[in-house]
Amino acid sequence: MKKIAFLGVGNMGNPMAQNLHKAGFDLTVFDVSTKALEVATAAGLKAAKSASEATNGVDAIVSMLPASRFVEDLYLSEGGLLDVTPKNTLLIDCSTIAPKSAQNVIEKALAKGFEMIDAPVSGGTAGAAAGTLTFMVGGEESTLEKARPLLEKMGKNIFHAGKAGAGQVAKVCNNMLLAIHMIGSCEALELGSQNGMDPKVLSEILMQSSGRNWSLEVYNPWPGVQENVPSSKEYQGGFAVDLMAKDLGLAMEAGLEKNVSTPLGATARNLYRIHSQNGNGRLDFSSVLKMLQESSR
Amino acid sequence: MKKIAFLGVGNMGNPMAQNLHKAGFDLTVFDVSTKALEVATAAGLKAAKSASEATNGVDAIVSMLPASRFVEDLYLSEGGLLDVTPKNTLLIDCSTIAPKSAQNVIEKALAKGFEMIDAPVSGGTAGAAAGTLTFMVGGEESTLEKARPLLEKMGKNIFHAGKAGAGQVAKVCNNMLLAIHMIGSCEALELGSQNGMDPKVLSEILMQSSGRNWSLEVYNPWPGVQENVPSSKEYQGGFAVDLMAKDLGLAMEAGLEKNVSTPLGATARNLYRIHSQNGNGRLDFSSVLKMLQESSR
Amino acid sequence: MKKIAFLGVGNMGNPMAQNLHKAGFDLTVFDVSTKALEVATAAGLKAAKSASEATNGVDAIVSMLPASRFVEDLYLSEGGLLDVTPKNTLLIDCSTIAPKSAQNVIEKALAKGFEMIDAPVSGGTAGAAAGTLTFMVGGEESTLEKARPLLEKMGKNIFHAGKAGAGQVAKVCNNMLLAIHMIGSCEALELGSQNGMDPKVLSEILMQSSGRNWSLEVYNPWPGVQENVPSSKEYQGGFAVDLMAKDLGLAMEAGLEKNVSTPLGATARNLYRIHSQNGNGRLDFSSVLKMLQESSR
Amino acid sequence: MKKIAFLGVGNMGNPMAQNLHKAGFDLTVFDVSTKALEVATAAGLKAAKSASEATNGVDAIVSMLPASRFVEDLYLSEGGLLDVTPKNTLLIDCSTIAPKSAQNVIEKALAKGFEMIDAPVSGGTAGAAAGTLTFMVGGEESTLEKARPLLEKMGKNIFHAGKAGAGQVAKVCNNMLLAIHMIGSCEALELGSQNGMDPKVLSEILMQSSGRNWSLEVYNPWPGVQENVPSSKEYQGGFAVDLMAKDLGLAMEAGLEKNVSTPLGATARNLYRIHSQNGNGRLDFSSVLKMLQESSR
Repeated sequence: MKKIAFLGVGNMGNPMAQNLHKAGFDLTVFDVSTKALEVATAAGLKAAKSASEATNGVDAIVSMLPASRFVEDLYLSEGGLLDVTPKNTLLIDCSTIAPKSAQNVIEKALAKGFEMIDAPVSGGTAGAAAGTLTFMVGGEESTLEKARPLLEKMGKNIFHAGKAGAGQVAKVCNNMLLAIHMIGSCEALELGSQNGMDPKVLSEILMQSSGRNWSLEVYNPWPGVQENVPSSKEYQGGFAVDLMAKDLGLAMEAGLEKNVSTPLGATARNLYRIHSQNGNGRLDFSSVLKMLQESSR
Repeated sequence: MKKIAFLGVGNMGNPMAQNLHKAGFDLTVFDVSTKALEVATAAGLKAAKSASEATNGVDAIVSMLPASRFVEDLYLSEGGLLDVTPKNTLLIDCSTIAPKSAQNVIEKALAKGFEMIDAPVSGGTAGAAAGTLTFMVGGEESTLEKARPLLEKMGKNIFHAGKAGAGQVAKVCNNMLLAIHMIGSCEALELGSQNGMDPKVLSEILMQSSGRNWSLEVYNPWPGVQENVPSSKEYQGGFAVDLMAKDLGLAMEAGLEKNVSTPLGATARNLYRIHSQNGNGRLDFSSVLKMLQESSR
Repeated sequence: MKKIAFLGVGNMGNPMAQNLHKAGFDLTVFDVSTKALEVATAAGLKAAKSASEATNGVDAIVSMLPASRFVEDLYLSEGGLLDVTPKNTLLIDCSTIAPKSAQNVIEKALAKGFEMIDAPVSGGTAGAAAGTLTFMVGGEESTLEKARPLLEKMGKNIFHAGKAGAGQVAKVCNNMLLAIHMIGSCEALELGSQNGMDPKVLSEILMQSSGRNWSLEVYNPWPGVQENVPSSKEYQGGFAVDLMAKDLGLAMEAGLEKNVSTPLGATARNLYRIHSQNGNGRLDFSSVLKMLQESSR
Repeated sequence: MKKIAFLGVGNMGNPMAQNLHKAGFDLTVFDVSTKALEVATAAGLKAAKSASEATNGVDAIVSMLPASRFVEDLYLSEGGLLDVTPKNTLLIDCSTIAPKSAQNVIEKALAKGFEMIDAPVSGGTAGAAAGTLTFMVGGEESTLEKARPLLEKMGKNIFHAGKAGAGQVAKVCNNMLLAIHMIGSCEALELGSQNGMDPKVLSEILMQSSGRNWSLEVYNPWPGVQENVPSSKEYQGGFAVDLMAKDLGLAMEAGLEKNVSTPLGATARNLYRIHSQNGNGRLDFSSVLKMLQESSR
């Protein structure tokens, strides 16, 4: 596998494509955003004028798009990739979209004779730049093995989550749980602080007790407790509130689809939406602490 | 320090007292429950006929009682311990009670010239038996140092949380956060399972991703994913739903006292109450998974 | 307008169709359920062997189906009603389905030259039998006027909610709000009762104060407070928990679609799902009171 | 009954006292706030320099204070009213406080030979000025009858809720339910609006359907739908967010006390706290609609 098309070179896609380029793949990129394309070419990538030009004659296509409808449009529309691409092209969709949508696209790809996986990522823009993303992959084991040489250049952990769409399922489950323990950690720290405890001391105790979770260990939401986390940089950088709200929306859709009860997940989704509506959509998602505190602080 | 009184030898107090006894302290115990006293004496402990008989001439008193009102009654009532005990007796309350109540008792003890700490524990009956409890201590550092030789015989981790009552604050913050990520983990596993994923595979992925938390690491709520956890023993043993609901009630009280917002903590408290009301109060708290699943399973 | 086809004669559709029949319309009915068809014909209605046979030569089609996919299939599938029906046939869909789905079906009907409205109902099987349903209608005013002579035979209140799909929007908004004040009323009554008040006295006070709402006025959830309501008949009859949970799911879908925050609506949906999962799906929706009470009662 | 002391003449107490004064009672007032006293005397009331001076020789005492601790201090402190007042003085506490606290004060008053009722009000400052308050009374029927001539001058509806403290129970139950259907109504209107409906049309439909509740009938939260309600006056006047948050806190306390589940009530309390923390504490409580909308509007 030598020639690759990378479709969607935004904040995540661009650094991922850079890593493939650096690893020696013959890469052509495309994005409907002229600005994104300019950033990518300025950084040394070769751009095409359309998706079909970019994918012409490649061994594999990697797509990284912002929502279900764009992925469906790219692959399934009349004259879309499934119509115009040779069947032996490996298809890898890294977008975070609804599990149902991923299943639908892959099912139609398989029916036409393609091999395709869903491979959403976690790790954020920092992980994309460092090539340390986590991939959660849905689809055939054998297809994952074909994709692995590419994925390994962009990420560190590669999980086979299950059949088509399972990558998306794992992703939304993870992010829902992340939102829940982040808000929970904020509540615990604020409750302790208002009752007289030092948030740093409390964080230490919780981390060594049964309250332990990723948010406290590597992403403490209380400013000044940990260095180099968004909370200590006025909640700049990191993973935006609006993106978390979007992922929680996907989790809710997946739950409605299968009639699942997610009481805390649903409340978390509403709290993130409210936080965004109050003007905090672009802050890091650990800024939800601010919502629980007096604004006069 | 040689002579110790241990007041309250129930499911937690009895094994704690046993560990002090084994370590060579001259221990006298008391409990208002005749049954609890019989169990303790059958296991080799020396029993008194009243709290005042048990505490007569001791160097330190350890109390382990089930609710704020019992602790207040023991220490503060007319003719209670603060009235009848020599001032140089070290007072250690290991009960889990309202922070406000602990502050009140300790404040009055200090005013009368005693040294006293609140030292609630986590780790459950298994930790009590193994002597591996975690102590969260509120009060003066110097008092904690005097108590340390006793605490070390009963536990492994000893945290100084802050001033009087801070041990209780740390405890309720921890257990609130624990309840939240336990329910969150159940929601994520059920959401994944209903969307076609193997809960074991999903647990593996979440543990190595940002969804990581104590519930998944050492206490997986899905039957069969981990060995020797309550979920794999039909939710027997462990930490009872009713005790978690009680601790969540204490967290809510502490939040109301200081006007703190705890949206997920409040929902968690209500879910545990509902789970208890539906007849599951004595099951382990990870059984909350069952509430999210069809009862016909 | 004389000849009518009525498609879907289940618990709601059958009594609605009976009322049209009694009013003198020349009615033909169809249902994919043989059992439902037998019940309808036993009650005097004329049955066809297929939807296309039933709709052959009619002036208007009324459909009453249980979910979005059935409505889409009936009208939009290849060879479906939009393909085979003369354009001058009035189309009235009384099913409760997703607003987005209703908009989609009506949009396609209009594009082909039909006139069509969505006209979901409230009032339950009792209202259907008595001809006192409330219709919430989406679509053109002029189309509603053509449908009015039929709707008036089945219902008492006919609201024009707005453009296509608005009937469904009004319906899901109403039922979400109903679920919220029903659960809220149950919480208030249980809180009062546990604090020593007579639920009947409390209900009287709330009804004449700012807590007033439909649930207390005509559907009191506490057994024995009102006569002839489901709570006084062991929660039999009425509006099933599972149907409320379904409608709350539609409300959640409509909210996700437009990024709306519905924190209480989301919690209500989860509580109804949990109540159903615990084996109460067929009870009346006011039985949610039981979930808030000790099961040992 | 002729001579009356009125203690606490703030925003509510002052207009209530004015109505007693206008009705011909010989009234003396007191307030720890010099400013409040000045306002009261400027409006023609006779002020005393202390509570004991005000209550000297009166037939009845009416108290209207902002929190449990003030009421307890007034009546129960050493040298407080229960110590210095003749036993035949009728005691009427109109404050909104914790049911438990009201029970405690009345119990001690009865033990000393007084007659006393708790009589919290609803209706806000407008109702206080117009003499149209609703009284929810706890205590003996016969005591209520003695108080009735006073209460009738200040209010329109007088409910006997039950024994001592029941007035407070009814009040917190009512306000919890009010908060729930207010937030629920906001959610329904926003959901409908975002899905294309006119909030005025939707309000009409909901009011005539099973979504009907007091918030929609007389206090519509959507600006412009009703005249002369706070939402149409930029949420000025009315019942403040902070007061609603306080009452919800009392409801939560009453629930914790008796181990009651109030999932929607708890979420409502947290939402009102968050709304207050974001700087909206003095707006009318119907402004919670704003929290659910984009702040950029």
